[in-house]
Amino acid sequence: MIFRQLLEPQTSSFTYLLACESTRRAILIDPVDTEVPRYLTLLDDLALSLTYTLETHVHADHITGAGRLKAERGSKSIVHRDAGARCADLLVSDGVFLQVGHLEFDIRHTPGHTAGCISIVMSDRVFTGDSLLIGGCGRTDFQEGDAGRLFDSIHQRIFSLPPDTLVYPGHDYHGRTVSTLEEERRSNSRLGGAADRQTFIALMANLHLAAPPHMHAAIPANLACGTL
Amino acid sequence: MIFRQLLEPQTSSFTYLLACESTRRAILIDPVDTEVPRYLTLLDDLALSLTYTLETHVHADHITGAGRLKAERGSKSIVHRDAGARCADLLVSDGVFLQVGHLEFDIRHTPGHTAGCISIVMSDRVFTGDSLLIGGCGRTDFQEGDAGRLFDSIHQRIFSLPPDTLVYPGHDYHGRTVSTLEEERRSNSRLGGAADRQTFIALMANLHLAAPPHMHAAIPANLACGTL
Repeated sequence: MIFRQLLEPQTSSFTYLLACESTRRAILIDPVDTEVPRYLTLLDDLALSLTYTLETHVHADHITGAGRLKAERGSKSIVHRDAGARCADLLVSDGVFLQVGHLEFDIRHTPGHTAGCISIVMSDRVFTGDSLLIGGCGRTDFQEGDAGRLFDSIHQRIFSLPPDTLVYPGHDYHGRTVSTLEEERRSNSRLGGAADRQTFIALMANLHLAAPPHMHAAIPANLACGTL
Repeated sequence: MIFRQLLEPQTSSFTYLLACESTRRAILIDPVDTEVPRYLTLLDDLALSLTYTLETHVHADHITGAGRLKAERGSKSIVHRDAGARCADLLVSDGVFLQVGHLEFDIRHTPGHTAGCISIVMSDRVFTGDSLLIGGCGRTDFQEGDAGRLFDSIHQRIFSLPPDTLVYPGHDYHGRTVSTLEEERRSNSRLGGAADRQTFIALMANLHLAAPPHMHAAIPANLACGTL
């Protein structure tokens, strides 16, 4: 397998390139529009064809590169059917299995940060988007966010995976790139250890975070699959 | 590749089983609910796991087996996003590529019989549902049928495939099982030879066909993905 973790520094967003070495088919998880030239160069350097782009959710802080990549490379966009982005080429739901060459993925619906959040499970790793972050989790105060749902998603749908599963998040704001489920179950400050549901809900209700600066442009653009 | 063409005699419906010999993953195209026990036996006899069921469209004459197969085998249902069956596990659109083990499929949107009709292109063959039938085509007088759209779909999206492509239709009422695009382009009574668009539209407007006897049960059940 070809694997690259790519950081977009303005919003500390991670994009993941995964590709099959024999078929040269590739998928990009959470591509960022401003980084598209970088992805195109990388795809060319590695002689890969881009089959899919996949959004873990409708992002509020940046615009997806899905639209530009589709125009450039004919890739098809994937989102959860509850995300509201009806323009996507594939709308998926919990439990769907997808292949990219010899790579195999399972979609897990992990709502809570948004209603249409998914995590992508792949052999030894899980791409958690903004559901589970390293040492934290995504906010739950807009886009149909729901702290109780997020707690249940993480405990029932992510923490139930094997403890040595690698956790690749959608963002990290402290220079970290990867964790394991064992670490997160033990020491995630919001969700690990003996954290209980009611305490988590109360904590998430009192974060008083500022709105992402570009959300009023980003959300409509992402609901339009990055084609605005 | 493992391939089986299965006839449901009450409605002369064809169901197709395709499976990958090495991974044992299978897909059923247009399964019929009353035939589900037969499919289960066949899957077991061939030691196959059913990854997907795929509908070429929302059928008016029979109820899909997708719901029962999902309950029995955990298969995920696929329909076109314009078909109106929002309950499907994967909603696809034109140009989407899918894999089942080592088998590769391309989805082609071929509206006209219904708005959400697709054909499935796979190496040497195309599964045309009720868009193109052997020597004929699906009716266009309900379910957002549109004879002009059907003519364009068949000429632009199906007849553009190589002439030796095998045509596997959704029905045949005269005991035929397969044709080729060369044959259909030459001698399909409605669409072959020098048939023109206006003549086809006039012909389709004057068929005066009786309604399928079970359509008022079948269509709602299929819009609910066979779970009613």
